[in-house]
Amino acid sequence: MDLVQQVREGNRVAIARLITQAENEAPEAIAALRELYPDTGRARLIGITGPPGSGKSTLTDKLVKELRKRGKSVGVVAIDPTSPFTGGAILGDRIRMSDLALDKGVFIRSMGTRGSLGGLSKATHDAIKILDASGYEYIIIETVGVGQSEVDIVKTADTTVVVSVPGLGDDIQAIKAGIMEIGDLFVVNKADRDGAERVVNEIRYMLDLNPDKEGWHPPILKTIAAQNQGIIELVDNINEHLDYLQESGEIVNRRKERISSEINDLILKRFSQKVTEQLAREDYLEHQLDKILKKEENPFNVVDQVVEKLLNN
Amino acid sequence: MDLVQQVREGNRVAIARLITQAENEAPEAIAALRELYPDTGRARLIGITGPPGSGKSTLTDKLVKELRKRGKSVGVVAIDPTSPFTGGAILGDRIRMSDLALDKGVFIRSMGTRGSLGGLSKATHDAIKILDASGYEYIIIETVGVGQSEVDIVKTADTTVVVSVPGLGDDIQAIKAGIMEIGDLFVVNKADRDGAERVVNEIRYMLDLNPDKEGWHPPILKTIAAQNQGIIELVDNINEHLDYLQESGEIVNRRKERISSEINDLILKRFSQKVTEQLAREDYLEHQLDKILKKEENPFNVVDQVVEKLLNN
Repeated sequence: MDLVQQVREGNRVAIARLITQAENEAPEAIAALRELYPDTGRARLIGITGPPGSGKSTLTDKLVKELRKRGKSVGVVAIDPTSPFTGGAILGDRIRMSDLALDKGVFIRSMGTRGSLGGLSKATHDAIKILDASGYEYIIIETVGVGQSEVDIVKTADTTVVVSVPGLGDDIQAIKAGIMEIGDLFVVNKADRDGAERVVNEIRYMLDLNPDKEGWHPPILKTIAAQNQGIIELVDNINEHLDYLQESGEIVNRRKERISSEINDLILKRFSQKVTEQLAREDYLEHQLDKILKKEENPFNVVDQVVEKLLNN
Repeated sequence: MDLVQQVREGNRVAIARLITQAENEAPEAIAALRELYPDTGRARLIGITGPPGSGKSTLTDKLVKELRKRGKSVGVVAIDPTSPFTGGAILGDRIRMSDLALDKGVFIRSMGTRGSLGGLSKATHDAIKILDASGYEYIIIETVGVGQSEVDIVKTADTTVVVSVPGLGDDIQAIKAGIMEIGDLFVVNKADRDGAERVVNEIRYMLDLNPDKEGWHPPILKTIAAQNQGIIELVDNINEHLDYLQESGEIVNRRKERISSEINDLILKRFSQKVTEQLAREDYLEHQLDKILKKEENPFNVVDQVVEKLLNN
């Protein structure tokens, strides 16, 4: 039986293999993804993001367990900072939610952030499609809310959960501010800490300054993920948002946005490869760099020349 | 007198204006940057990066002050997460190093991370060139070590300083691991905290696993930036690394790498604009998205079509 059919039937080994092939941009993966495309679009896609230290992994862990209690199958794509020494995602599948590893209704995959421009985004979208086509009912994408690619990925989920936490430093606060606008739901985690109420009020204040997002007023929930508190309410609220998206028809806009952003990424990725090929051709770039360093040429002219060579007008 | 000449002469108002024009991608800025290009390449470029909470801003502040004591002029480009509500960088120039604001030998500029693909990188490179052309002897780029664009920018500096700190959580540790390989110098800040020695040992261990970087063995320094401790040694070590780059000729490779990465960014940025135009044409994308949602089309075919339309073969 071929890999595509095995993926459709939810074979875990096949799923893992195809995701790896997609990450490596193997030609057979591209063909498989084309073939699987009609099977996608059924999963509910949940994005979880927040600053470092907000307890996203623990929250995701508890969220998965609550969804399992409700009989739902769950795929998780966790985007982790990458170690330069192993080349892999260092938080890794191994230490993530190890007690979930034996549950057949859960599939967890870590992705590293390292890679060429657009690589992370492409690999993540591919993994989501593969999990979707293989029948997982919920797919959770978890990523730190820093870095444009990471934020771009998570904001195209059906429902985006932004996790905050009391008592973080100034620069973490700044990171948080950068992701507030993408939240459909806000979670103040570690809510037993001092200052939790203040964080809730800050979020409420920010939300009050801004008009409702497409007719939806984002709720602010308090959780203590490590003690499994507030998780039932979180899942209920996620489902309410998903119902709202369906009923209002907003789900169509969300999905269009996601596909549109994906198409953009894929095109730029393709161009990026062309540019690399063009610059490598006959040491073109090396020659130009020597001239630029001597100030006989400037980078802007080189850009003009390459663009002119590659683009139809 | 025209803006370019004013920038050459170090006029602060002119510098600020040209950076803003470059951020907004005004045509006159592009022309000005071409004109200024021969005046660039003299500044020493220092990158400062580290996980959130490592005290990078304070360290940069003290570094600037020590360089000023040594009679050097310093430009600072600080990349901050952007607030969606103000559209500006929220750590902002205002609260940054306010006691340096009146020093004519220092120019501080904050840049927000928001913007289109390649936007941050382009704007930062432009700001560096403008400060370089206007005669600042040292230029410091400070950014959090998360997010591919941010790391890509800082790693093209002449000297990259990676700041660590004891006692951070798991996900911060992971972020740190992602930026270890780009360090020419390592700083363990807040070195009076418990665990500082362990962080030093961890870095040493990681460095021991890897061959020396181009013949340079990265030093590990301890600082308590808030108390101005270790700053003199840091500046001395930065200067030693810069001397090493000059003497070994390695500076040429670094600069080539920087220009090369910049050319790549500029080309992709240009393509990105073309793609947006193409997709907007006659509601092409909107029409395709409808078909994709109905599963009558798939995103990969759309990508093929757009690439074929835009690219010369």
